[in-house]
Amino acid sequence: MPPPNAAIDISSPATERPFYHAVGNEERVFAAAFRQQLPVLLKGPTGCGKTRFVEAMAHEMGRPLITVACHDDLTTADLVGRFLLRGGETEWVDGPLTRAVREGAICYLDEVVEARQDTTVVLHPLADHRRTLPIERLGETLSAAAGFCLVVSYNPGYQSVLKDLKDSTRQRMVAIQFDYPHQDVERMIVQRESGIGPHVAEDLVRLAQAIRRLDGAGLREVSSTRVLIAAARLAQAGLSLREAAEAAIIAPLTDDHAVGASLRQLVDVYLAGQRHD
Amino acid sequence: MPPPNAAIDISSPATERPFYHAVGNEERVFAAAFRQQLPVLLKGPTGCGKTRFVEAMAHEMGRPLITVACHDDLTTADLVGRFLLRGGETEWVDGPLTRAVREGAICYLDEVVEARQDTTVVLHPLADHRRTLPIERLGETLSAAAGFCLVVSYNPGYQSVLKDLKDSTRQRMVAIQFDYPHQDVERMIVQRESGIGPHVAEDLVRLAQAIRRLDGAGLREVSSTRVLIAAARLAQAGLSLREAAEAAIIAPLTDDHAVGASLRQLVDVYLAGQRHD
Amino acid sequence: MPPPNAAIDISSPATERPFYHAVGNEERVFAAAFRQQLPVLLKGPTGCGKTRFVEAMAHEMGRPLITVACHDDLTTADLVGRFLLRGGETEWVDGPLTRAVREGAICYLDEVVEARQDTTVVLHPLADHRRTLPIERLGETLSAAAGFCLVVSYNPGYQSVLKDLKDSTRQRMVAIQFDYPHQDVERMIVQRESGIGPHVAEDLVRLAQAIRRLDGAGLREVSSTRVLIAAARLAQAGLSLREAAEAAIIAPLTDDHAVGASLRQLVDVYLAGQRHD
Amino acid sequence: MPPPNAAIDISSPATERPFYHAVGNEERVFAAAFRQQLPVLLKGPTGCGKTRFVEAMAHEMGRPLITVACHDDLTTADLVGRFLLRGGETEWVDGPLTRAVREGAICYLDEVVEARQDTTVVLHPLADHRRTLPIERLGETLSAAAGFCLVVSYNPGYQSVLKDLKDSTRQRMVAIQFDYPHQDVERMIVQRESGIGPHVAEDLVRLAQAIRRLDGAGLREVSSTRVLIAAARLAQAGLSLREAAEAAIIAPLTDDHAVGASLRQLVDVYLAGQRHD
Amino acid sequence: MPPPNAAIDISSPATERPFYHAVGNEERVFAAAFRQQLPVLLKGPTGCGKTRFVEAMAHEMGRPLITVACHDDLTTADLVGRFLLRGGETEWVDGPLTRAVREGAICYLDEVVEARQDTTVVLHPLADHRRTLPIERLGETLSAAAGFCLVVSYNPGYQSVLKDLKDSTRQRMVAIQFDYPHQDVERMIVQRESGIGPHVAEDLVRLAQAIRRLDGAGLREVSSTRVLIAAARLAQAGLSLREAAEAAIIAPLTDDHAVGASLRQLVDVYLAGQRHD
Amino acid sequence: MPPPNAAIDISSPATERPFYHAVGNEERVFAAAFRQQLPVLLKGPTGCGKTRFVEAMAHEMGRPLITVACHDDLTTADLVGRFLLRGGETEWVDGPLTRAVREGAICYLDEVVEARQDTTVVLHPLADHRRTLPIERLGETLSAAAGFCLVVSYNPGYQSVLKDLKDSTRQRMVAIQFDYPHQDVERMIVQRESGIGPHVAEDLVRLAQAIRRLDGAGLREVSSTRVLIAAARLAQAGLSLREAAEAAIIAPLTDDHAVGASLRQLVDVYLAGQRHD
Repeated sequence: MPPPNAAIDISSPATERPFYHAVGNEERVFAAAFRQQLPVLLKGPTGCGKTRFVEAMAHEMGRPLITVACHDDLTTADLVGRFLLRGGETEWVDGPLTRAVREGAICYLDEVVEARQDTTVVLHPLADHRRTLPIERLGETLSAAAGFCLVVSYNPGYQSVLKDLKDSTRQRMVAIQFDYPHQDVERMIVQRESGIGPHVAEDLVRLAQAIRRLDGAGLREVSSTRVLIAAARLAQAGLSLREAAEAAIIAPLTDDHAVGASLRQLVDVYLAGQRHD
Repeated sequence: MPPPNAAIDISSPATERPFYHAVGNEERVFAAAFRQQLPVLLKGPTGCGKTRFVEAMAHEMGRPLITVACHDDLTTADLVGRFLLRGGETEWVDGPLTRAVREGAICYLDEVVEARQDTTVVLHPLADHRRTLPIERLGETLSAAAGFCLVVSYNPGYQSVLKDLKDSTRQRMVAIQFDYPHQDVERMIVQRESGIGPHVAEDLVRLAQAIRRLDGAGLREVSSTRVLIAAARLAQAGLSLREAAEAAIIAPLTDDHAVGASLRQLVDVYLAGQRHD
Repeated sequence: MPPPNAAIDISSPATERPFYHAVGNEERVFAAAFRQQLPVLLKGPTGCGKTRFVEAMAHEMGRPLITVACHDDLTTADLVGRFLLRGGETEWVDGPLTRAVREGAICYLDEVVEARQDTTVVLHPLADHRRTLPIERLGETLSAAAGFCLVVSYNPGYQSVLKDLKDSTRQRMVAIQFDYPHQDVERMIVQRESGIGPHVAEDLVRLAQAIRRLDGAGLREVSSTRVLIAAARLAQAGLSLREAAEAAIIAPLTDDHAVGASLRQLVDVYLAGQRHD
Repeated sequence: MPPPNAAIDISSPATERPFYHAVGNEERVFAAAFRQQLPVLLKGPTGCGKTRFVEAMAHEMGRPLITVACHDDLTTADLVGRFLLRGGETEWVDGPLTRAVREGAICYLDEVVEARQDTTVVLHPLADHRRTLPIERLGETLSAAAGFCLVVSYNPGYQSVLKDLKDSTRQRMVAIQFDYPHQDVERMIVQRESGIGPHVAEDLVRLAQAIRRLDGAGLREVSSTRVLIAAARLAQAGLSLREAAEAAIIAPLTDDHAVGASLRQLVDVYLAGQRHD
Repeated sequence: MPPPNAAIDISSPATERPFYHAVGNEERVFAAAFRQQLPVLLKGPTGCGKTRFVEAMAHEMGRPLITVACHDDLTTADLVGRFLLRGGETEWVDGPLTRAVREGAICYLDEVVEARQDTTVVLHPLADHRRTLPIERLGETLSAAAGFCLVVSYNPGYQSVLKDLKDSTRQRMVAIQFDYPHQDVERMIVQRESGIGPHVAEDLVRLAQAIRRLDGAGLREVSSTRVLIAAARLAQAGLSLREAAEAAIIAPLTDDHAVGASLRQLVDVYLAGQRHD
Repeated sequence: MPPPNAAIDISSPATERPFYHAVGNEERVFAAAFRQQLPVLLKGPTGCGKTRFVEAMAHEMGRPLITVACHDDLTTADLVGRFLLRGGETEWVDGPLTRAVREGAICYLDEVVEARQDTTVVLHPLADHRRTLPIERLGETLSAAAGFCLVVSYNPGYQSVLKDLKDSTRQRMVAIQFDYPHQDVERMIVQRESGIGPHVAEDLVRLAQAIRRLDGAGLREVSSTRVLIAAARLAQAGLSLREAAEAAIIAPLTDDHAVGASLRQLVDVYLAGQRHD
């Protein structure tokens, strides 16, 4: 067993509000859904701040936050709990969803479409008027504590026939649409997260916007706010802006030589003449 | 083991009749099937009240209700029971179906087509004149107690070659067709479930009916009674009606920009001029 | 462990002959196969009485009957047996097939094509001159007791490339073809099983025959004797005949609106003027 | 644990030569391969006597016979052995192949193409000059005792891209081709196995030959010697010849109405006028 | 546990050089790779002597040989080792690869493409400059002892999109191409392995060469040296040469009647007039 | 349990800088990413030095290195840890990723696209601002120690629809593009790693460059630096240069006769006249 001091409890509430800058009415919609005990679906592309938003909202609502990164092999037992063998006895150990239900925490299932549909079906009684979690292996059904709130995220750009949210799941949720922040907000975020100066941040944001306008031109996904921050941090660590943009923006975005070359031209246009201020 | 006071027993009968407003003869058909010990199949779209109907009927018949949300990985053992290791001994623990069979409860298998066909085949001896549950791992066969009634639901809109009820299963069932309630009933349900005033409820219902007439126009599923209630509750929590409709109706229904825009036009038409009464 | 008085032993022989009315020479063929220790294959559509036939024949032959509902996940171990952990020791527990082999029972594998082919291959040494069951995990081979008889059923209408009986299995069997009973027999069965009067039973049988003539017209399967009995029982419980036919015949047969409408026309024709006698 | 007197040891050699009538040089080829310690592959259609042949050869060679019916889920561990938990210790239990290797038995893998390819690859070191069985879980390699002989069967008619013997397996084997016996031999076999008189046996054989000439005309497989014996035995048990042919030959061969009708015409031609002698 | 005297340790070095007759520079290439601690890939058709070659080389290098027949279900744990339960404790048991790494043995993975790619990826750190075997379940990394040499074989004729060696695996190997031996060498091998006289051996080799020239004419694989030896041994055991060629060459090579007939013509040409010298 | 002195701890830092010769700014980019605690993605073909690069960087940063070869069956538990049974108790054992997170090591996931997507999704909270590893089975979340750095490699040439890095994973990484080194650097590497003289090394490098220009001409992958070193080492061990090139370059690159022949022509051109200096 690892030493307990090496571990942070998943459900510890943040002591200071994590940095999240609202883009629209998303904070008010979340608060209304939370008050009405309705589950929330966050829709939007990668790297636009969904995780930070949930962290900030958990702080606002004063609830612990339990985050689960969903994937193909996440079983219902991983969420709900399982029996473990202890001293020759089988002992029940709650999963993260069960803990959130008992403790009234916010349970955030990141990229929920990655989970198998059985995992999403098990959420149904929690997501409607019942607010209950049947634990078949214990033969009991928990009622969610008052502060419990189910939050899931998904990226509509990844939608496919094979992996999509069932309508019976979607219609149980209040949905909030996310997108990349507006130019000024994004520049401020890049500055704050990297410590870079305002001019470089401005140029990086304008570069990102140019790349986003290329959508469909051989790129599977455009540059997120996250990669701008990474480029700015590499520049802070001593790389030239071109080196930083190459390593943090171009190389992660594409493996194609032609696409890489045209991205490099954009870098030349938008980051030219920039010195490291 | 979780503290027993944190748990509600699955089989506890409701002490007060859950709110369900009959649309047609569904309550009389259910009662006749129950008296004749015939299993019942509830057919209908998501969010039209099938779960509430079963809760109300369990109360009417005075039987406990055991609900199982079906999914791809629900095994026969999850329904029937399994051996667990206790103190070095393997000990048999009944599954929810077995409990219902022993106790004469109503066993509701929600979205039964999600389960693998082995799960539905195991229901056959329970669903015909035998009313027995063979438990192969115990080497015994249970006779269902008098009040036992098997109820399953499925959504014909989800029918596919891969996932459908076998005819040998369907023909063992008495089937009841569900649809969204008539306008007046739906308005009353929205009012009652959200606490919203009659005029807003009326407008939301008319909006839903307009959306339902769009069926096929890029929508996979139309707006259910459930999403109307959610919109009304968000409005009760302080959002404007447009914000509430966006978050509870439009965003859950579609990820498509064009479809979203045309839904927003309907919102403008039906919720315009509405103030929050 | 459940209380023993709540359970019926699978192998208990019926004390009174279950109701089955012969349609052709099926009882004589079964008796000849049983005397010659040849396995029997029952072919026919759902709900035509195969299960009842086996129950009646087990009674005639004076043998216990062990029934196994086959499905995709039925493993060889489920049929033959497995080791369970008891008091730190692994203890062998016979499966239903092994019990039937030891006790000389009739073992009925219902819908055998649902089982994986490994399950049917394990039947081969039992189904030819050897009449042996090799139990690989025990390292021994059982000889079937004298009264042992293997009976399997399957529905040729479900035949597919993926799920079919291997020829090496079929050619080990004596096959009996089943179909819905003739009009008079079917009417008598409906009366007897539901307690309904002869005129209503007659009309229901004529309705079923009309539906059976529709075969191919959008129906995957036609109305079985079983659904006629269900309709009659719902009428006995107080529903009108039209309500009963809707719930027990039309709704289970189809989810298609047009097909449902044409079935309703047949109901109008054949059940019109009928009062509940 | 079952009572030991209820079980026959798999490796007990037959005390009297099982009835098998040679069709060609198959007995001499088998004996030569056995003397040279070469493995044997039996090729041929279902029901032509491969199993009986191996039983007779085992008797001739004076070796015990261990038969394994192969299937999709037969694992290497099922053949080679596994650890079982006994009294808190894991104890190794030999599988049937390992027993045959140690005891110098004939090991017959029936329908070997049904097994997964890993099962056939594990046979390679046993099937070439090494004659060894590596048991990876024990970390040892057994040398086969002198009388050990590996025999496998397969039905070339079932060959498919997915299920076929690898060439590296086939080229390790001496192959013997089987077919249905000649007319006189087959008649004698039918008489001997069923107790029927020579005239009926003759007619049944001629019927079978007529059916075999139909090969390709909608039949997946033709009538084997085994089904002739079954028909004769049903006749011995009191059915008319037509009833017996219907139950033992026609119904197992086809589910198709048209094919069944043309088979019935052949029955009329070949079994007409036959009385039960 | 089996008696230890019945078992040969896998890693025992051969006391006398196994018979292998070099065809080209393969022995020198192997020795150079062994001295440079480079892994070796043996490419070539079935039955051309790859296994014998490795046995001879292990003897030359004075190293124990551990052979693993690869297959679809060979897991990394089967190669590396696993925990077994002994006396209530989990105890680690080395797999054959780990034993070879510790003891400096030659580890021969026969038909390595049959293994899943995870098994080949685990070989990478052993196959480059690192010569290490990370054992994730023990949390340690072994350095290979000096004499350790990894040898794998594969048959390019079986190459497919699904089953092929990854380039990152191939480029870690020194590859040696095998083919059937030249006429004189092959004749000598057939004589030595079967004890047959030189004239018959000569004719069998000439028959094999004629068959090899047919490659593509309906044959999936041509006759290997191994099947010539088998035919010669059957002749030694008393079969006529034609019978021996039928059983050991023709029947294993094909199930097709036309192909079989043309092979029989070749047998007539090449083995005609041959008496058993 | 193996003797501890036979094992090297995976996390031991190298005592002397492993030989790696920088090609571009890759060392500076890595150092900047390490300082900024950003994860690193190494892109490039097989055998171009990615593994050596990570070894050198771990030495530069003074951090232990934990390498995991990824594959299809690598589960999240293999990375994160699992419960093992010890003395009747289940005891948690850290996986390599968890050890790296606790100890502040560099964790290198080689060929990460081979792993299932669930394995890459579990990396997300480690790869963004959170730098946390949720261990669902322990119900805790670790914060990465300061020196922890996640490094993954992948080969864009293997990209396919089925196996690719998700954009949400890529955009969390700083990417460095690798290629084969320039002529002079590669010659020096070949000399240093094999001990061969400069002229032979020069010729081998020129041969490799000629082969690389063939890309697309029937070759799936071109000759890496690794195969040049292998050829040089075989020559050092006494093979002629042609033999060494055949065994280390041509045979591993292709199974096709025509492609092999044209590669042999290049060998004749570039290695002609070379004596072993």
